[in-house]
Amino acid sequence: MLQFALFGAGRIGRMHADNLGRNPRARLAQVYDVNGDAAAQTAAQHGARSASSVEEALGDGDVGAVLIASSTDTHVELITAAVAAGKAVLCEKPIDLDIGRVEGCRNVVENSGLPVQIGFNRRYDPTHRAVQRAVRDGEVGAVEQVVITSRDPSPAPVEYLRVSGGLFRDMMIHDFDLARFMLGEEPVEISAFGSVMVDPTLADMGDVDTAMVLMRTPSGALCHISNSRRAVYGYDQRVEVFGARGMVRSDNRRATDIERYTGAGTATRDPLMPFFIERYPEAYVDELDDFIDAVEQGREPSVSFEDGRRALILADAANEALRTGRNVEVRY
Amino acid sequence: MLQFALFGAGRIGRMHADNLGRNPRARLAQVYDVNGDAAAQTAAQHGARSASSVEEALGDGDVGAVLIASSTDTHVELITAAVAAGKAVLCEKPIDLDIGRVEGCRNVVENSGLPVQIGFNRRYDPTHRAVQRAVRDGEVGAVEQVVITSRDPSPAPVEYLRVSGGLFRDMMIHDFDLARFMLGEEPVEISAFGSVMVDPTLADMGDVDTAMVLMRTPSGALCHISNSRRAVYGYDQRVEVFGARGMVRSDNRRATDIERYTGAGTATRDPLMPFFIERYPEAYVDELDDFIDAVEQGREPSVSFEDGRRALILADAANEALRTGRNVEVRY
Amino acid sequence: MLQFALFGAGRIGRMHADNLGRNPRARLAQVYDVNGDAAAQTAAQHGARSASSVEEALGDGDVGAVLIASSTDTHVELITAAVAAGKAVLCEKPIDLDIGRVEGCRNVVENSGLPVQIGFNRRYDPTHRAVQRAVRDGEVGAVEQVVITSRDPSPAPVEYLRVSGGLFRDMMIHDFDLARFMLGEEPVEISAFGSVMVDPTLADMGDVDTAMVLMRTPSGALCHISNSRRAVYGYDQRVEVFGARGMVRSDNRRATDIERYTGAGTATRDPLMPFFIERYPEAYVDELDDFIDAVEQGREPSVSFEDGRRALILADAANEALRTGRNVEVRY
Amino acid sequence: MLQFALFGAGRIGRMHADNLGRNPRARLAQVYDVNGDAAAQTAAQHGARSASSVEEALGDGDVGAVLIASSTDTHVELITAAVAAGKAVLCEKPIDLDIGRVEGCRNVVENSGLPVQIGFNRRYDPTHRAVQRAVRDGEVGAVEQVVITSRDPSPAPVEYLRVSGGLFRDMMIHDFDLARFMLGEEPVEISAFGSVMVDPTLADMGDVDTAMVLMRTPSGALCHISNSRRAVYGYDQRVEVFGARGMVRSDNRRATDIERYTGAGTATRDPLMPFFIERYPEAYVDELDDFIDAVEQGREPSVSFEDGRRALILADAANEALRTGRNVEVRY
Repeated sequence: MLQFALFGAGRIGRMHADNLGRNPRARLAQVYDVNGDAAAQTAAQHGARSASSVEEALGDGDVGAVLIASSTDTHVELITAAVAAGKAVLCEKPIDLDIGRVEGCRNVVENSGLPVQIGFNRRYDPTHRAVQRAVRDGEVGAVEQVVITSRDPSPAPVEYLRVSGGLFRDMMIHDFDLARFMLGEEPVEISAFGSVMVDPTLADMGDVDTAMVLMRTPSGALCHISNSRRAVYGYDQRVEVFGARGMVRSDNRRATDIERYTGAGTATRDPLMPFFIERYPEAYVDELDDFIDAVEQGREPSVSFEDGRRALILADAANEALRTGRNVEVRY
Repeated sequence: MLQFALFGAGRIGRMHADNLGRNPRARLAQVYDVNGDAAAQTAAQHGARSASSVEEALGDGDVGAVLIASSTDTHVELITAAVAAGKAVLCEKPIDLDIGRVEGCRNVVENSGLPVQIGFNRRYDPTHRAVQRAVRDGEVGAVEQVVITSRDPSPAPVEYLRVSGGLFRDMMIHDFDLARFMLGEEPVEISAFGSVMVDPTLADMGDVDTAMVLMRTPSGALCHISNSRRAVYGYDQRVEVFGARGMVRSDNRRATDIERYTGAGTATRDPLMPFFIERYPEAYVDELDDFIDAVEQGREPSVSFEDGRRALILADAANEALRTGRNVEVRY
Repeated sequence: MLQFALFGAGRIGRMHADNLGRNPRARLAQVYDVNGDAAAQTAAQHGARSASSVEEALGDGDVGAVLIASSTDTHVELITAAVAAGKAVLCEKPIDLDIGRVEGCRNVVENSGLPVQIGFNRRYDPTHRAVQRAVRDGEVGAVEQVVITSRDPSPAPVEYLRVSGGLFRDMMIHDFDLARFMLGEEPVEISAFGSVMVDPTLADMGDVDTAMVLMRTPSGALCHISNSRRAVYGYDQRVEVFGARGMVRSDNRRATDIERYTGAGTATRDPLMPFFIERYPEAYVDELDDFIDAVEQGREPSVSFEDGRRALILADAANEALRTGRNVEVRY
Repeated sequence: MLQFALFGAGRIGRMHADNLGRNPRARLAQVYDVNGDAAAQTAAQHGARSASSVEEALGDGDVGAVLIASSTDTHVELITAAVAAGKAVLCEKPIDLDIGRVEGCRNVVENSGLPVQIGFNRRYDPTHRAVQRAVRDGEVGAVEQVVITSRDPSPAPVEYLRVSGGLFRDMMIHDFDLARFMLGEEPVEISAFGSVMVDPTLADMGDVDTAMVLMRTPSGALCHISNSRRAVYGYDQRVEVFGARGMVRSDNRRATDIERYTGAGTATRDPLMPFFIERYPEAYVDELDDFIDAVEQGREPSVSFEDGRRALILADAANEALRTGRNVEVRY
């Protein structure tokens, strides 16, 4: 039974707490949040203690692992403190918005020898994973084109967007990771286009809400990602991998498989899922399970700190490509 | 070049005239209709002669084949006259509403040695045909269940329904033929349920507009057919064949492959086709072509007079089953 | 917190035990099985006691509800004992194979005033339920046709089939219940066809493995059910409801939404689910939740003992129709 | 009745000849091909004359329109000669591989006042057209993202590829036109990636067989196109238009709507169409009809010479972007 300290009792933190509660190999022992009431409530719900400080939570000798679901600007500090305290870490993406801070943290993580996993949950989605396995097993032959579509249902609140680090580091970072996962190779060149089509206030922040990128790998495989901060029909999450021997696609998952036929149209299916919590429930469960496996087996996590660093490097490269209007060579 | 006399210049007759016009091996030579103006107009359009009588049309020595698209009550008489005049015949379904008259006509047809084909167009639909070929080629193994769904967009006019012979002989007769085509065996037992759900005036005629039947073949394969005289989403035409090794299905064809995504629903496709003319254009073309093949090769047509007789026997058996509330044994 | 005694620790019993374990309002307190080891193991897994007899389990004053997942021939006795002990009951289908015993038990249940729910899990499947709600809310207008397809992946072991009560009472009973759920009316007439196509040993038992029925309701709505004991592509579970204003369908659910494109075919989706445990996980969870609601609120369960009785009456009527080759009038 | 001279009796020329033959408003009068036998054969088939020279064909005073289906390097000369002879022109894409020659020809065309239409057949495909109409009618609101997927079944012969002008001018030019059609705006910036993944000999020619581009319009709408010279599952032709109020998609069309279910997978549909002749039959028919309308009505064709010129400008810009690794500003 691996005992966890949870940092962050917001929406995603509470979801992780629920998953810990249902996992027979895990136990939520400590909860800390800057909002003490939130921490207390989540702790109470799961028979955990509400820690009054990070130190208190990390000081619990029974705690073997830390789950970081607090705001991005706290991640590096918490990872650093956690590994210093000898705890394994499962940390929500992104590691940080600043690649320098991430590199610094990398040394700490590597020296610790402790498992530090980054929360790229999509790799664990049953459909995305089935696509990746089909690709890995050679079903499509050599990968030639990867197309990832990722559209949020609606923009986050402006206060969040203001500190989000911008679309590429906050949102597309998931797709950069998924691209690497599907390509089985590192993208080495990137081009990016972005626009403000959804929320004009983003323009003032120098951010975009609609974006497309292209990437190339050493083998010549090409990858396209499209993002939008708003899709009225729900959270649109698709992946297509095309190769010498065929194509596999990850289509959207719906809440049900009902089909409607009327005079206005036929075979109408449900709108897509509201958002990531509803879209990726199995993924979050399996991510946690895989992390516990890594800790128990003392192995490198399947989604490593390095994966988090590389996704951020791609996001930074996309920003540079957008700013300069040039293809950017990616160096890791 | 096979020259045709066309009997009947209504909607379906005109469609056949167009197909004759486009077929490089056919030529429309004579058109006869009780409505002389209709005949004249269709004839003019295709450079054919408008005959003032059946006899005149059949008297044309250049005419090698007759296409009968007039009302059902004229079919037997026209087939009889046509084969007497030595012409091959392609006759719209059903042959007649009275099995006795059909049996009488059968002798005439058989003795003539001439090709007489019945217009069960659905056998020629590319998708239905692909399903039947997959079945024939053993893809699903031994056939165990056949499910046919056939719903018209809206009921025919009351005047038509009054002389139609009832749902089983007028509408489900197509599905009886399709069932035999898919089963590769003769149904030997039938049960039938029927209701008036669409148009109450049908009750006064002793007819139904909503019906379901079950059939069994000697091997034990079971078949279900459902019919409705009205489907607001269009002309619903589906076939499913299930067997020991799998299933093949003929899904509905749409005018386009557009898909719509809105907040109300996703992947919405077009309404189904308006009706048989729009749904089965390739089928009518291929039916004609196959008939011309039969005439040119002097072989039995793929869809024979006997097929027409057997479909009617099934329709009559369905009526008996509906009336008596018993399973009816089918004898051919 | 409602405490449960579980009778039956086989495959389905263990699944219910897991669901009880995950439900925050439930606790598994007692487990009894004729196989003491099985009971002990399941009890141990969930911190429950392994009872040495039915009486011992029912004697636990903390137990408020009984979950019956033992073999069918024990259901009536256990229901009777449970309500005598003042416990609410959630009992797997069918209540019993003998309608006389069911009627006897009905009196006991009714007199007890206790909630007794029958395990027709499919009503709780998100897609089937969405279809039923669309129908109930008038989306398709007056219901005219219901078509239910239900095919098991492969036949149960012969030893089970021998005591199963036959296809109609063992397997199609689920579909009879689903038909009543979708129709919103009681079927009053039924016709049935059956064959042995899958396993010849069934013929010796006087059973069938392939079956189709038709039913009619007082309003004239028609219903078709098709069953097979074997589908090589997985557990096939579909419902179609057609009415005056349109159609809604419950299509099969797959494990993932992957699509494959090769030279052999395109848009290939996963095989269907292996069987009911994998196909209906949410349904079993929601069924339990709804039962706990009924107990807590002291209301009639959504799926009542009477629903179990009526489904059995339909199964018996189907058997009679199959035997006699006549439509059978259904009396409840 | 509009009489046509056809230049080019290769595969696509013969297809046009067939469409002329079936169009009641058109007549094929003259056929010219550098291969005199090919011309003679097509002419014979359609009761046309086989011209011994371009001049002879254009000298036919009854000819009102010219259909150019010869090799790309002849287009400008033939357009020029045709308008000089006072004929309307329907010319296959691309106009030419050299934008300078196209600009020169533009003056001739404009001065002539004659209808000159470029053969961007995809605009006439029923599904693509339905998508464009939905967009034009505001169904998706402001257009924000367009994604076009276009993959050929297999590379053309090397001899053809050698003179094709490269992937962007030969193949993606169709998609550039489709993008403009869907966007309703002119792309003003472009980025391009390309690889040789299919046929290594292309590398020697300085060409690519796998490519992706991004484009931006003045309103900020983004567009992605992906091309491959080889897709083992058939000719892949998809369009997706995403906007503020939803999404519409043009999915692939198949020869039939059969679905297969086996133990290996379910709902398997046909491979995609072999190639453009089979995929776009209605488009070529409607394209011709619309051209005849333009000639009869003396109006500008729906797909103008200018559309041909702009698509080539985009292809040239893509080549420049690929060569320089920079976004290229597009000027028309």
